Amino acid sequence: MKGFAMIKIGQVGWIEKEKPKVGPYDAVVRPLAVAPCTSDIHTVFEGAIGERYNMILGHEAVGEVVEVGSEVKDFKPGDRVVVPAITPDWRILEVQRGFHQHSGGMLAGWKFSNIKDGVFAEFFHVNDADMNLAHLPEDIPLEKAVMISDMMTTGFHGAELAEIGLGDTVAVIGIGPVGLMAVAGAKLRGAGRIIAVGSRPALIEAANFYGATDIVNYKNGDIVEQVMKLTDGKGVDRVIIAGAGPDAIDKAVKMVKPGGIVANVNYFGEGDVLPIGRLDWGAGMAHKTIKGGLCPGGRLRMEKLIDLVRYNRVDPGKMATHVFRGFEHIEKALLMMKDKQSDLIKPVVIIEE
Amino acid sequence: MKGFAMIKIGQVGWIEKEKPKVGPYDAVVRPLAVAPCTSDIHTVFEGAIGERYNMILGHEAVGEVVEVGSEVKDFKPGDRVVVPAITPDWRILEVQRGFHQHSGGMLAGWKFSNIKDGVFAEFFHVNDADMNLAHLPEDIPLEKAVMISDMMTTGFHGAELAEIGLGDTVAVIGIGPVGLMAVAGAKLRGAGRIIAVGSRPALIEAANFYGATDIVNYKNGDIVEQVMKLTDGKGVDRVIIAGAGPDAIDKAVKMVKPGGIVANVNYFGEGDVLPIGRLDWGAGMAHKTIKGGLCPGGRLRMEKLIDLVRYNRVDPGKMATHVFRGFEHIEKALLMMKDKQSDLIKPVVIIEE
Amino acid sequence: MKGFAMIKIGQVGWIEKEKPKVGPYDAVVRPLAVAPCTSDIHTVFEGAIGERYNMILGHEAVGEVVEVGSEVKDFKPGDRVVVPAITPDWRILEVQRGFHQHSGGMLAGWKFSNIKDGVFAEFFHVNDADMNLAHLPEDIPLEKAVMISDMMTTGFHGAELAEIGLGDTVAVIGIGPVGLMAVAGAKLRGAGRIIAVGSRPALIEAANFYGATDIVNYKNGDIVEQVMKLTDGKGVDRVIIAGAGPDAIDKAVKMVKPGGIVANVNYFGEGDVLPIGRLDWGAGMAHKTIKGGLCPGGRLRMEKLIDLVRYNRVDPGKMATHVFRGFEHIEKALLMMKDKQSDLIKPVVIIEE
Amino acid sequence: MKGFAMIKIGQVGWIEKEKPKVGPYDAVVRPLAVAPCTSDIHTVFEGAIGERYNMILGHEAVGEVVEVGSEVKDFKPGDRVVVPAITPDWRILEVQRGFHQHSGGMLAGWKFSNIKDGVFAEFFHVNDADMNLAHLPEDIPLEKAVMISDMMTTGFHGAELAEIGLGDTVAVIGIGPVGLMAVAGAKLRGAGRIIAVGSRPALIEAANFYGATDIVNYKNGDIVEQVMKLTDGKGVDRVIIAGAGPDAIDKAVKMVKPGGIVANVNYFGEGDVLPIGRLDWGAGMAHKTIKGGLCPGGRLRMEKLIDLVRYNRVDPGKMATHVFRGFEHIEKALLMMKDKQSDLIKPVVIIEE
Repeated sequence: MKGFAMIKIGQVGWIEKEKPKVGPYDAVVRPLAVAPCTSDIHTVFEGAIGERYNMILGHEAVGEVVEVGSEVKDFKPGDRVVVPAITPDWRILEVQRGFHQHSGGMLAGWKFSNIKDGVFAEFFHVNDADMNLAHLPEDIPLEKAVMISDMMTTGFHGAELAEIGLGDTVAVIGIGPVGLMAVAGAKLRGAGRIIAVGSRPALIEAANFYGATDIVNYKNGDIVEQVMKLTDGKGVDRVIIAGAGPDAIDKAVKMVKPGGIVANVNYFGEGDVLPIGRLDWGAGMAHKTIKGGLCPGGRLRMEKLIDLVRYNRVDPGKMATHVFRGFEHIEKALLMMKDKQSDLIKPVVIIEE
Repeated sequence: MKGFAMIKIGQVGWIEKEKPKVGPYDAVVRPLAVAPCTSDIHTVFEGAIGERYNMILGHEAVGEVVEVGSEVKDFKPGDRVVVPAITPDWRILEVQRGFHQHSGGMLAGWKFSNIKDGVFAEFFHVNDADMNLAHLPEDIPLEKAVMISDMMTTGFHGAELAEIGLGDTVAVIGIGPVGLMAVAGAKLRGAGRIIAVGSRPALIEAANFYGATDIVNYKNGDIVEQVMKLTDGKGVDRVIIAGAGPDAIDKAVKMVKPGGIVANVNYFGEGDVLPIGRLDWGAGMAHKTIKGGLCPGGRLRMEKLIDLVRYNRVDPGKMATHVFRGFEHIEKALLMMKDKQSDLIKPVVIIEE
Repeated sequence: MKGFAMIKIGQVGWIEKEKPKVGPYDAVVRPLAVAPCTSDIHTVFEGAIGERYNMILGHEAVGEVVEVGSEVKDFKPGDRVVVPAITPDWRILEVQRGFHQHSGGMLAGWKFSNIKDGVFAEFFHVNDADMNLAHLPEDIPLEKAVMISDMMTTGFHGAELAEIGLGDTVAVIGIGPVGLMAVAGAKLRGAGRIIAVGSRPALIEAANFYGATDIVNYKNGDIVEQVMKLTDGKGVDRVIIAGAGPDAIDKAVKMVKPGGIVANVNYFGEGDVLPIGRLDWGAGMAHKTIKGGLCPGGRLRMEKLIDLVRYNRVDPGKMATHVFRGFEHIEKALLMMKDKQSDLIKPVVIIEE
Repeated sequence: MKGFAMIKIGQVGWIEKEKPKVGPYDAVVRPLAVAPCTSDIHTVFEGAIGERYNMILGHEAVGEVVEVGSEVKDFKPGDRVVVPAITPDWRILEVQRGFHQHSGGMLAGWKFSNIKDGVFAEFFHVNDADMNLAHLPEDIPLEKAVMISDMMTTGFHGAELAEIGLGDTVAVIGIGPVGLMAVAGAKLRGAGRIIAVGSRPALIEAANFYGATDIVNYKNGDIVEQVMKLTDGKGVDRVIIAGAGPDAIDKAVKMVKPGGIVANVNYFGEGDVLPIGRLDWGAGMAHKTIKGGLCPGGRLRMEKLIDLVRYNRVDPGKMATHVFRGFEHIEKALLMMKDKQSDLIKPVVIIEE
C-alpha cells in the first residue's frame, strides 16, 4: 500500500509498505478523510520527537473499518468511524491511575505518527478497536468529523485543565486550530469574557465566531500589559496556552490572578527550559497552578465529542478552510501547514465521501 | 413606606412599614424591577417555612442604592445594582467552610422574605453591601437583570452541582424558570444531549430555546421509562431536579448511570421523607451521588452571572413572558405565580427604568 | 477439586467442581489464606443477590499462582499474590468513565461469589491477571494480607468518598470489620475527632485502637442525639456508614452539618427504600451530599494498600481474632460470621503459610 | 511597649512602640509563647520582601486576649488563643473566590511582620478576632500550640496541595520544620512510602519520627537519581517542596510520574526565574501539575489543627528542640534561626505559662 511518510528528519515522500495486520483486538481502517497537524511539521522538519525513518505521518482521521480481529465486538467491516489521535493500550496500570495518555510511559498513548505508522496511508492499524474507535453518525460531514480526532479533544482539554467556572474571564494564548477549539471549549464550559491572543485576521474572525469577546494582538505590544489593561489591572481567572514559545508560561503566570490556573495544551518544541518568574509566582506562594497535558483519546471521549457536534454545541467545520478531494492531495495539504498562508486555518483531505 | 406582605399564612396584602435603616456596612435600595418566585407562593399559601406575620415578600430585584453606611466603599447613592436572593453575613465560620448559603445556620444565607423583609417594598435593606451587591451595567435591560438574582444562580447551581462533563447526557426534571435555567446551565457547562422533562407547550418551547435536545412529557407515561428508552437503556450521566414531588429523587436515581450524579435545586415543599429505591441505588454501592443545595449568592456570583448576560452566553430575558410597569402591579404579578396560566413563564414588574 | 459452596439460598456445603481453565490473560490461583465476609452470609442466608446454585463462596484471598495464560506478563506460577474482591474487566467503557466497579453493569466488577465461583476452593480463576493481581511482599503475614482484598479497600473507600479534610470531625456508623477500617481510613485521611457508633466491647476496643476518639452506643439512646450532644449541637463534618439498617442514611443526614458528606459503604440488605428526612435535608437545599459505592479493586489499588501495610500506616491484623489452619476450616469460619460471638471481629483460615 | 524589630534590612533590635488599639472587630493579645521563623530571617537579612523600618518581627504565637472591640462576640480578655500567621480581612472578594490568603492582593492575607507589626512584642493587634483567633484548649502545652500558627498549617498545606491519595509514594524536599510538617502531613493524608530529602542528622531523625520511610541525602549525589533508583525508575506520585533553591521545581518535575503533582510551600528567596525542564515536563503534555501556595490561616483552620494535636494525630512538640523562658530571649531565639546549629529544629520562647 501507499503512504505519505517522514523519510527522515527534514524529508517527506510517498513510500510503499505492507498493509497492516490485525491482532485479535485490533482493526484495519481505510481513511475517508484526514487532516495534517502542526505537530506533523514539528516531527518532520524540526525533529521534535527525534529521528524516524520511513514512518507514515498523520494522526487525524475518520475512516471505514475494513478488517477486525477475532475478539472485536462492536465494529465490523464497513462501519464508519472516528479515530482518535490518542489510541492507548487500556490494559496498563497508568489507566488505573487515570492517565491513559501516558499508558506505557509518558505520552505513550500517542501512537500514530510517533510510535507506529500514521493515518496518511491507504490503510492503517488501530489497536484495541472496541476501546479506541467510535461510530460516526451519518449526519456529520467528514470535514467536521475529522476535527474531533485531535483539534477538538486538544483544545477542549485546555478548557478542562483550566477548571473554568461559570462566568470566569479566560485568556487563550494562540488561536491556531487548537487555540480556536480552546476558545470554543472555554465557551462550552461557561466562561464569560474570553480574551484571545493572536494576530492573523482569518484566525481573529474565527476566534470571534467561536466565542472570543476581546482580541489581543501581540503586534500591538506586550500581551501581558494589554490583558492587564483590559481587565483594569486585575488579570484573568484562567489562561489556556494553545501555541507559543517557551516564555508563554511566564506570561500566563503574570496575567493570571492569585488562585488562578494556567493550562497548557501547546507542544513546546524548543528551548531547554520553560521559565516561571519567581515574583510573579508569588515566590512560590501565589496559588497560581500550572498544568499541561496531552489530549484525551479513546472511544468514550470520541463519543462525547461526537455528541457535541451532533447536538450543535460547536461547529468545528468552520476551521476547514481548505478542503481537498483525493488521497494524492495529502502531500500538498501537509505542506500547507508548513508554509501557512494568511487565510489558512486547517486543510482537510477528503479521500472518499 | 409601602410593601406587599405576607400578613400570615394564607393571606397577603399591602402594609405600611418604616423605611429600613443602614448599619455601617449596609445599604438601603429602592427596587427598579422585581419578580415574584414560586417560593413566595410556597411561603404564603403552603406555610412551607412556617408562620410569618406582616413580612414583606420578594427576593428577586434590581434596584438603585439610596443610602449607604459609613463603611461601605464600593457603592454610593444612585448606583444601579443587582441584588442576590442570597445575601449572607460573610463574617461567619461557615464561610470559611465554603458554604456561605448556610452562614449562621442551615439556609440562613437566605434572608429576604424569610428572615427579614423582602424586596416588594418602596425600599429594602441590604446587609454588607460591598460583599452582596453588584453593579448593573448600563446595557443590560431590567427584565433580563432581574433574572440573575435567583433564577439564573439557582438553575445554574443545578448544573454546577451535577459536575457536568463535556458531552455528557443530562436530564432536567422540571422546566419552570429554574428548570429552564438548569437547561441553559447544562448547555453552558458543555452537556451534549439534554433531555428536558415537562409538559406545558410554552415551557417546552423555551426549553428547546435554552438547549434541550429532547423533551419527555410525563403525560405520555412514566418518565423513567421514557428516558431509558431514549438512551437505549443506558440512562443518563447526570440528572438535575428543578421542580417535582418527593418521588423525584427516586426517579432520578433510577435514570442515572452508575457513577452518575443527581443534583437537586428544587425546594421540596411536601412529604416527611424523600425515598431512594434501595436496589436502584445499588443497595448502597452504585456510586450514584445525590446532592442538593441552595443557590450561591453574594457579589462575586452576581458579577460572574452579569458577565454571562453581558457577553451573550445566555439570554434570560426570554423567560419574562409577562412584564408589568408600576409598583402597584406586584400583587397581580405574585398571584400569577399562584394560578399559573398556560403561557406564563415568569412575570416581571418594572418599577422604574 | 473441592469447594465450599452455596448450594442454594439457605444451604451451604462442600462440592466437587472441575479446576478452572485459564484464558490468554488469566491466572489460576490456589488460596494460601481466605476470610469469610458478612456479604457471603447475606448471599446465602438472605438471598440478597438472588438465587445461585452450587456457586463456590468467598472473595477475600491471598494465594499462589499455579497457572497463567499465554499473554500474562507480570505473574508466573509460584508467585504469591493478593487477590482483590473486585476483579473487573478493564477493556470496558465504564473504565473510561472512571468506574471499574461497574464495568459491564452496575456492581459487575464484583465477580467472585457473585457472577462466578469464589475463592473457597482448591483453585480459583482470576480474569486479567496483570491488571487484577498484586505481588505479596514476603514480610507481610497472611492474616494481615487477606484483610486487604475487601476489608481495607471497602472501609478506606468510605473515607475516600467522604472527602475528609485535615482535622474534620467524622462519625462512623457500624464498627464491624468494614467499619473498623473506615475508622482507620478516616484517621489515615487526617480526621481529627472520630466518633464510632457501635456496642460490642471487642469492637469498641478495636475502634479505639484504629483511631476512634469517642464511642456512641446505640444501646444508650438515639445515636443522632448522642452525636449532637457530643458536638455541642453542631453535628459532624462527615459520616461514614459501614453497617446499619435502612434508616442509617436518614440518621446520618441528621447528624451531618450543612455542606457535609454522608458516605456509604454498607451493603443495604433489606427494605424497598432508604428514606431521607425532607427537613433534615434542608428541603433539598442543605448541601448535604449522599454518596455510596462498591470498593475499588484491581492491581494498582492492591499495591497502594499493600504499601500502607508494609510501611505500618495501618495494622489490619488486629482484626483477625480467630485464625484457623487448614482448608477444611472454611466451613466453620464462614458460619462464625453468621452466629457472631461476642469476641469475634473476623475469622481467617490459613491454608498454607 | 517593647518589641523586637527589623530596624531596616540587615539590622534588628529592641524598640519602643505604642500599644496597639482595637477597632470594633479587633483584639489586642499579649503573647504567651512565640517562635521565630526562617522567613523572619529572609525578611531582615535578605530583604526578601523589600525594605521595612522599625517593623516588629514574628508571626508565630499563642497568647492571651487583653482587649477586644465592641463587636467581638466569641473572645474576651483572659482567653487563651492560637494566633494564625495568616490573619486575612474576610470581607473581601478574594474570600468569595476561595483564596483568603490573597485577600486584598497577592499574599496580603499575611499581615504580621509583613504589612503590620508582628508578635514579638508585649502586645500585638489581631484584626477580625472572631474570624481569626481560635481558643486554645487547656491541655495543649504552649510549645506544641505555637507550632500550629505556621509550621503545621504550612507543611500540611503542602500535603493538601499535593492531593495525596491513599498509599501514594511521596517525596518531600527539605526537612526543616516546614518540611517535617509536610512529612507529617503526607502521613496524615495517607501516603504509603515517604522519601524525605535532607542531610542533618537531627532533622533526619525527626523526619523518621514524623513518617519518612526513606531518606535521600543530597550529599550522596543527585537527588533525582537517588529517588529514581529507590523507585526502580518509576518516580514518585507526588512531590512536596518545603525548602530549596530555584532548581527545586525542575528536580521535582523530573522525579514525579506523568499525572503527578508537585506542590510547593517553600518561599523562594532568590533567582529571577524558576525553570522547568521542557522535556521533563513532556514538552507541555505530561500532566505534571505544579502548584504552590501560602498556608491557610483564619479561625476554622486553627480549630481543625488544634483538633489534630488534641487527638494525638500529630505531635509537633518534637520540633521544639530549644525552649527558652522569658520575653528577653526572643532575640537569641531569632538569631538561632540565622546560624542554624546542627541540633536545631525550632526554637520556642515561652513568655508566660
